[in-house]
Amino acid sequence: ATTFRASEHQHIRYNPLQDEWVLVSAHRMKRPWQGQVEPPLLKTVPRHDPHNPLCPGATRANGEVNPYYDGTFLFDNDFPALQPDAPNPGPSDHPLFQTEAARGACKVMCFHPWSDVTLPLMSIPEIRTVIDAWAAVTEELGARYPWVQIFENKGAMMGCSNPHPHCQVWASSFLPDIAQREERSQRAYQSQHGEPLLMEYGHQELLRKERLVLTSEHWLVLVPFWAVWPFQTLLLPRRHVRRLPELTPAERDGAPTGSKAGANWDHWQLHAHYYPPLLRSATVRKFMVGYEMLAQAQRDLTPEQAAERLRTVPEVHYRLGQK
Amino acid sequence: ATTFRASEHQHIRYNPLQDEWVLVSAHRMKRPWQGQVEPPLLKTVPRHDPHNPLCPGATRANGEVNPYYDGTFLFDNDFPALQPDAPNPGPSDHPLFQTEAARGACKVMCFHPWSDVTLPLMSIPEIRTVIDAWAAVTEELGARYPWVQIFENKGAMMGCSNPHPHCQVWASSFLPDIAQREERSQRAYQSQHGEPLLMEYGHQELLRKERLVLTSEHWLVLVPFWAVWPFQTLLLPRRHVRRLPELTPAERDGAPTGSKAGANWDHWQLHAHYYPPLLRSATVRKFMVGYEMLAQAQRDLTPEQAAERLRTVPEVHYRLGQK
Ligand SMILES: O=P(O)(O)O[C@H]1O[C@H](CO)[C@@H](O)[C@H](O)[C@H]1O
Ligand SMILES: O=P(O)(O)O[C@H]1O[C@H](CO)[C@@H](O)[C@H](O)[C@H]1O
Repeated sequence: ATTFRASEHQHIRYNPLQDEWVLVSAHRMKRPWQGQVEPPLLKTVPRHDPHNPLCPGATRANGEVNPYYDGTFLFDNDFPALQPDAPNPGPSDHPLFQTEAARGACKVMCFHPWSDVTLPLMSIPEIRTVIDAWAAVTEELGARYPWVQIFENKGAMMGCSNPHPHCQVWASSFLPDIAQREERSQRAYQSQHGEPLLMEYGHQELLRKERLVLTSEHWLVLVPFWAVWPFQTLLLPRRHVRRLPELTPAERDGAPTGSKAGANWDHWQLHAHYYPPLLRSATVRKFMVGYEMLAQAQRDLTPEQAAERLRTVPEVHYRLGQK
Repeated sequence: ATTFRASEHQHIRYNPLQDEWVLVSAHRMKRPWQGQVEPPLLKTVPRHDPHNPLCPGATRANGEVNPYYDGTFLFDNDFPALQPDAPNPGPSDHPLFQTEAARGACKVMCFHPWSDVTLPLMSIPEIRTVIDAWAAVTEELGARYPWVQIFENKGAMMGCSNPHPHCQVWASSFLPDIAQREERSQRAYQSQHGEPLLMEYGHQELLRKERLVLTSEHWLVLVPFWAVWPFQTLLLPRRHVRRLPELTPAERDGAPTGSKAGANWDHWQLHAHYYPPLLRSATVRKFMVGYEMLAQAQRDLTPEQAAERLRTVPEVHYRLGQK
């Protein structure tokens, strides 16, 4: 019998955090690429565009004028998916037709006054300002809502047509679906094994090493064992941190997203997910389509191969290297 | 207090088939569209292109030459994500690192010898040939595998760069993740309520009417109460049918996908999901990105509004109307 090798033989892996399976078919990377190629990314973005509603001094869709901000700038989304005051739908009349109330807030946060930078092109003190602003908005909205989701839709491939560096913050009166699954899994793991799932997971990855991308005094970056997106990574603090505001100043000089308020949440561990849409290069993307939407997530190289490639990426940002 | 109206007030809905929630924020449709606009769809596709590997008589990547087929044409995917003979990964050494064996088969099915048609442009007898071929491949692969997934990735937006009308068939030695959830939900519903979940669901939708799109003697098409994609629809047979091969000749003159073999599957009901990627028109798509990937599915119009719009779509196909 042939010996199993993950990099050659298809198999399925379990995601214990979100209770999901992924099909790993690494041999698919051998096929020649005949599919879609995206336009190259390098567009020249003007540093300031008075017509871009995210720029300092610009007028937004609702007529408000942005201040001439010089750090981060937080404002209410003009077309929020979550508003603070929707009425309650009332009880459902049938188990197959269940509706629940949803209340919340949607905010937009600009990272920097310039449109031609992204987080990786900003200085450490500038990034630190963003992290402090994430912790502050988590604290502010977390006082009113059980869940605060901070996320960045980055680039045209992800439907983001505004190049100005910014993220969104959606707080909700309910635990979103994926947070609910992470809640269930982490709570069950803690009660069964006596420690947080992601603490033990980080510990194991430090021992196993093959999926590590970066380690620092305070943080780990790794390709999770159960990664779905080709170059998906997970950012974890080394110590047990439940929410962004708990991060120490030293930890904030390089940190992420995600929070949750309430009773006992010691089973939670702060973490950030990165899901880049790419498969082979900056212009060949991974499509998560028919099989993924209808059956199960599928990936074409192993998480270990992805980690290996990410580890060897140059330290210098590609846009700085070009100068 | 304001009376709740689904078309105005955000709320969350439960998907009892896949055990998931969706955030419905219909008021978002009021915003002006400033986002990405896709290139128009109308490209002229040649009826026959000898260099297109899906055309009759063309040579495929592996050197094989296609027959001059005149109906459907089924062949093995040259770069299958599932192969029949991968070795078993063996037992996992830690609960956070679980791997299981995956075996299977991937096939491609051309619907028609011409590249310039799609299913909706084919005649009823031509479509019937496709449905019979789906039932046959389900029977063939279903004898060896517990799950046969038939799916069509359609159009460039879904990463399909080959215009020739075709679908894929992936059979697996495991129940894919979404099938597993549908299995759990349908089994639990049947044991609690004594009838298949989707039979009762179809029955309720026939009574409630607001989400129906089309009804015929044998089939229902509706926007499910828990739809995630703006114009997602669900196709259901009126009577209890577990698998494609069980369809009668009359039912096959207009039918879909999906099957499963094994012990007692009476809780299953055959169904097909349609997930078009569009939001507002043929050139404005819905991006399922940051919030959807990290937190929860979100939609911008209600399933009832979508059903209403789909009901009023012209009967004549847009490409035929242009003539
Ligand atoms: O048709 P292809 O090129 O084999 O593959 C396409 O569908 C597959 C199944 O949904 C996806 O995994 C791929 O990302 C997509 O490009
Ligand atoms: O940034 P926007 O335009 O508000 O919205 C974008 O992100 C949202 C949250 O992931 C998605 O629901 C939208 O489909 C997407 O276009």
